Amino acid sequence: MTSAAHSASALRPSPLADLDTAALREAHSAFARAYDDLKAAGLKLDLTRGKPSAEQLDLSDDLLHLPDGRYRDAAGTDLRNYGGPTGLAELRAIFADALRVPVGQLLALGNSSLTLMHDTIAFALLHGVPGGELPWSSRPISFLAPVPGYDRHFTIAERFGIRLIPVPSDDNGPDIEAVASLLETDDSIRGMFCVPVYSNPTGAVYSEEVVRALVSLPAADDFRLIWDNAYAVHHLSDERPEPIDVLALAAEAGNPDRPLVFASTSKVTYPGAGVAFFGASPANVEWMLHNLSAQSIGPDKLNQLRHVELLRDADGLAAHMEKHRAILEPKFAAVDAAFRERLAPWGGGTWTAPSGGYFVSLDVLDGAAKRAVQLAKEAGIAVTPAGATFPYGDDPRDANIRIAPTFPPLDELTTALDGLCTAILLAEAETLLSARD
Amino acid sequence: MTSAAHSASALRPSPLADLDTAALREAHSAFARAYDDLKAAGLKLDLTRGKPSAEQLDLSDDLLHLPDGRYRDAAGTDLRNYGGPTGLAELRAIFADALRVPVGQLLALGNSSLTLMHDTIAFALLHGVPGGELPWSSRPISFLAPVPGYDRHFTIAERFGIRLIPVPSDDNGPDIEAVASLLETDDSIRGMFCVPVYSNPTGAVYSEEVVRALVSLPAADDFRLIWDNAYAVHHLSDERPEPIDVLALAAEAGNPDRPLVFASTSKVTYPGAGVAFFGASPANVEWMLHNLSAQSIGPDKLNQLRHVELLRDADGLAAHMEKHRAILEPKFAAVDAAFRERLAPWGGGTWTAPSGGYFVSLDVLDGAAKRAVQLAKEAGIAVTPAGATFPYGDDPRDANIRIAPTFPPLDELTTALDGLCTAILLAEAETLLSARD
Repeated sequence: MTSAAHSASALRPSPLADLDTAALREAHSAFARAYDDLKAAGLKLDLTRGKPSAEQLDLSDDLLHLPDGRYRDAAGTDLRNYGGPTGLAELRAIFADALRVPVGQLLALGNSSLTLMHDTIAFALLHGVPGGELPWSSRPISFLAPVPGYDRHFTIAERFGIRLIPVPSDDNGPDIEAVASLLETDDSIRGMFCVPVYSNPTGAVYSEEVVRALVSLPAADDFRLIWDNAYAVHHLSDERPEPIDVLALAAEAGNPDRPLVFASTSKVTYPGAGVAFFGASPANVEWMLHNLSAQSIGPDKLNQLRHVELLRDADGLAAHMEKHRAILEPKFAAVDAAFRERLAPWGGGTWTAPSGGYFVSLDVLDGAAKRAVQLAKEAGIAVTPAGATFPYGDDPRDANIRIAPTFPPLDELTTALDGLCTAILLAEAETLLSARD
Repeated sequence: MTSAAHSASALRPSPLADLDTAALREAHSAFARAYDDLKAAGLKLDLTRGKPSAEQLDLSDDLLHLPDGRYRDAAGTDLRNYGGPTGLAELRAIFADALRVPVGQLLALGNSSLTLMHDTIAFALLHGVPGGELPWSSRPISFLAPVPGYDRHFTIAERFGIRLIPVPSDDNGPDIEAVASLLETDDSIRGMFCVPVYSNPTGAVYSEEVVRALVSLPAADDFRLIWDNAYAVHHLSDERPEPIDVLALAAEAGNPDRPLVFASTSKVTYPGAGVAFFGASPANVEWMLHNLSAQSIGPDKLNQLRHVELLRDADGLAAHMEKHRAILEPKFAAVDAAFRERLAPWGGGTWTAPSGGYFVSLDVLDGAAKRAVQLAKEAGIAVTPAGATFPYGDDPRDANIRIAPTFPPLDELTTALDGLCTAILLAEAETLLSARD
């Protein structure tokens, strides 16, 4: 038990919002003392980004000497030279099943799916997409953004001057009624960011019903789902969602060109030194290859060969991901335990318990998130800025905090979470008190 | 001596253009017989692209097991994880001197300088550049294109709807009077493609006088030199141009932001699995990093570490390039020998004898290039399409053919060159005869 828990527990915890003002002041004083202790500890811990830990990276260290002198693919091609715009067939075969994209419609490309999403949107802005009459940039456009969501998606849109329209989401994905109504009334909408499996940051898995709706709803012919399947194989439990074949469902619905599927090995092998994938309808793949042909004479095929030799096949990939799970499961359990122990007794927050992915989404009391993150930062605990999970950094309730528990070792994580809870409780008591002034 | 040389030499070679029609017909018949023999040989040879040969690729095969278990840079950073947007300082240090870009203004990025040029132009179109009021895409724009030039440059511009204005060039680089006059009279000009050292395809090296003019001439504040220094260290002789510090000259001229320097290791180590560089003024580097920050969470730093371990330092780079030279010098000598033996006696062409780079530029008789390339192709010898060295594939004289001698083994190269000369002589005789009809 921490000092904060000790001193505050003397107050018989109950939901802060229900306390009378005197009890709230007492709680605030206790939290403030705990926070002073925390600051005095001089921590320097980081929960900001969804980075694999060193222990996870070690799992792929065969990449540091592969391909061990070899440089030919199964077809005998010398992979050291130019060419091969679609990427290695062998590597695409390993990921085709997990991503539910036929090998012939799956490209293995550079080191980042973020780059592919950015460039795909740049291509659409400058050239338009199949089914569109004009480049996207020919008029002001908007994207739908399920919230809370991924800040780097928002940054791409913001940089390109694409207006982001927040859409509420729940455990089954985005609110389909809201999506339908927006698509019906706003003809500036050209795209929508989706993280269909273990969403960043909520861990939500889109239901088949939601996916069917997204590919079926009436929308412009050049409307695209930016289907960021970043966590398709990143399970944290044995309960696994059946992969949804979004391309098949879209084709069935008569909108084969709507989804653009993105993924990468950034959190399978090495971030930065991995391989990214693009999957789509034949028309979209042809469009992508045409655009890529002006940008590149081919991806780093040797790095793709390294990945083939490391992962071998779909079973090898699944086995590799089990090793990640073994490292990550205790960290996610630690998040849940910390919030249960420290926040729950005070009604201090609600959070997700994802079955996969890299994040926990925490909602603290309205109006307290920014202050909590600031307090944590001043105590040496870096957390993703409050609001980052909303377009323009604007969380209307100022409640959401994204927790990224993967990078620190377990003991540091536990210390950081405890300190964060102290900061949150103090921020919440402050917020409630100032509302009663 | 080949059969073509034999049979034609019976005619006492003299410049085809000077022959009377009877003699020209006789020569044509001899060339046609030689060409029939050539076709009957059923060759399948390729002189199309500037690709390193397998023997050259072998020089870098240590990359196939490096970094041999290591994954930290000199500063101790774990290179397996995200981050490091500027690229490895150690690798930038190796190339800074050769490229004449201070390490602090040099970025080591992805696997392709073509990608960097494409993306830089896309950023400029969508966001504008330092010194510019508006994104380039806000109005129709043009680029200057020294000719003959590099087809992949032209493709980027053509895809983006940037009008290309050909500028004549000679052994010292682009015709500065023409550049000055165009810049003065056409305010749509936003950029210019330059290959300052061992130009593609002529091998020309820009003189210091030309470079000083390019960075000094009055031009729009958002005018940029796309300074593709692809062949800076790719020497073929001991006579080496003194590297020109284009950034310093531009700063001196009061136009520090004008040059954007690009380079890569594609023809140092492996095409596709190499590292590309971007160098520019501090303002341009900041602009680039800002744009990259929405596109990427960092380049493949492990591949950069591989390159540091392979090349070690500037001396290691120079020694490595000497090994390339040893392989390439005989191939370029073979081109010169073939044209001297087969074309010169008939006045059949003029060609460059570059001191570095990857290409020889051949001018055949006006109007004969396309036909020559077609005849070569039909005889199983693939050559870069005639016209490819001009914007829109439009060589107004139909005379220029780019020769790429690096990829085939020497014996295949010799065979291909001999066959190509046969095709050229036949095309030239045809062309002259049809003009006399």
